[in-house]
Amino acid sequence: MFKNILIIGCGMIGSSILRGAISQKLCKKVYVYEKNIKYQNQIKKINKKIILIKKLDKKIKDMDLVVISTPMSEYQKIIIKLNKNLNNKTLITDVGSTRGNVTKLIKEKLSKKLNWVMSHPISGSEASGPKFGSKNLFKNKWCILIKNKKNKLLEKKLSRFWKKLGSRILFMQEHEHDKVFAVTSHLPHLVAYNLIKTAQDFQKTYKKNVIKYSAGGLRDFSRIAASNEIMWRDIFFNNSKNISKIIDLFIRNLKNFKIDINKKRNSLLLDKLKKSKKARQQILLLKQDISKPDFGREN
Amino acid sequence: MFKNILIIGCGMIGSSILRGAISQKLCKKVYVYEKNIKYQNQIKKINKKIILIKKLDKKIKDMDLVVISTPMSEYQKIIIKLNKNLNNKTLITDVGSTRGNVTKLIKEKLSKKLNWVMSHPISGSEASGPKFGSKNLFKNKWCILIKNKKNKLLEKKLSRFWKKLGSRILFMQEHEHDKVFAVTSHLPHLVAYNLIKTAQDFQKTYKKNVIKYSAGGLRDFSRIAASNEIMWRDIFFNNSKNISKIIDLFIRNLKNFKIDINKKRNSLLLDKLKKSKKARQQILLLKQDISKPDFGREN
Repeated sequence: MFKNILIIGCGMIGSSILRGAISQKLCKKVYVYEKNIKYQNQIKKINKKIILIKKLDKKIKDMDLVVISTPMSEYQKIIIKLNKNLNNKTLITDVGSTRGNVTKLIKEKLSKKLNWVMSHPISGSEASGPKFGSKNLFKNKWCILIKNKKNKLLEKKLSRFWKKLGSRILFMQEHEHDKVFAVTSHLPHLVAYNLIKTAQDFQKTYKKNVIKYSAGGLRDFSRIAASNEIMWRDIFFNNSKNISKIIDLFIRNLKNFKIDINKKRNSLLLDKLKKSKKARQQILLLKQDISKPDFGREN
Repeated sequence: MFKNILIIGCGMIGSSILRGAISQKLCKKVYVYEKNIKYQNQIKKINKKIILIKKLDKKIKDMDLVVISTPMSEYQKIIIKLNKNLNNKTLITDVGSTRGNVTKLIKEKLSKKLNWVMSHPISGSEASGPKFGSKNLFKNKWCILIKNKKNKLLEKKLSRFWKKLGSRILFMQEHEHDKVFAVTSHLPHLVAYNLIKTAQDFQKTYKKNVIKYSAGGLRDFSRIAASNEIMWRDIFFNNSKNISKIIDLFIRNLKNFKIDINKKRNSLLLDKLKKSKKARQQILLLKQDISKPDFGREN
């Protein structure tokens, strides 16, 4: 499908693309640029054919596809190198979780002769690093591509690439994307962080070990609160406007809930709880989770 | 260990106690009182020796252990029957998730000659009904027993019973229990409900299907938001004072977080995110979850 692919930043997501591309034979040669030495050693073990490069210099001029999977705060430095060394036939993509900021960055910093179509595969885990990657990571998961008026052909090429990795493709506008994921991803993550923080604060004040009893619910949130902090700092900063609005809506719901329980509004509360159950059924129908109940992870 | 055990209310938790007691041979005869006809049929299939009773009348006078595992809103009606028909040698226990309210109920409504030692096994899932029970549900999980000055002997007997089911025992005072679980269980659950509600509200206002993209984080919360609504209504009402306080602390953290991301407080935010990761490590060390990363449930 491509002759040469270059993956810039090869952590959990990057190495999953790498593994998928190799296993699906999507390229003749695959190059990796990764600064972390520990990661470099893990990458070498994936496949002997992988070519690790030490600099983003002239060597990259023959790449057909460049996938950027570093934290978004690295993009600006990378763009300078791409502007210098890439040719106008190369398809550039990235896997960042917010799209408005990258649209702006491309407009302002990327050379006009270069072509970048943004991707956002909705897959991941709390684990970081190439050893946790999997060629199946994208299987049956959504991959959002951001509409690109400039180059429909490259858009199609990119779409085929993700389909070969197992993704289901959806096109969105960047501002629509950032609004939707503020709700379904950014809010849940910041809520998980703040739930853990609240438990830690309580633990400090009351000198009681509460983390010990986390199997009652807190445990479920601690998993996503353990996600990579650099990646999430970038997401929270880049989408702060949409996230702030949704935090306000969420706080309003929490305050109403507090009134419900203090005033013992029975039928109203039951109604709310039942409605949440319906969302769960919808999620299962849409195959976004499995229905097998989780009884404590080891049963 | 006991001659006769009676389980009142035999859903997921009750049937797990039932299964454990049979498999560990903790009694000669096991009786079940369950009003739900669908559940009755599921219970019959567990073991032929189970004796289903239709009324809590004189027949129950020879019970050595009575385990109440109905929603807490049923307790008052049950106590009237126990007062009438039980003898003073019977050990009564229950598995309710809040303890202050039940302490009060026992003091006010239970006959002084009867003996009730409260239990709270920290195990469960979003599934309801006896067909989802498991004899291993309590294995290596905490079971909190509430200190009972009146009868140390029965306390020991109950502790042995739970240990045979696989539980690890911890004693607490009722007010301490309700404070701790407001943080580790009640807050996470109400947060999950309100996260789903916020996503549903957003969906309505913007006419966008956001549930579709729940694999980005929301999915993880939808599981516990699908828990039994009667059980949770009871918990929220019964522990509303402690829960309200912890909602306030949580909202304060959310508001600070909003300021952090809007003012781009870099090192402060990174510090907060890193601290959450530490709690995750603690939870894994305490064996309250498994470390295997979750890449999307089917990989």
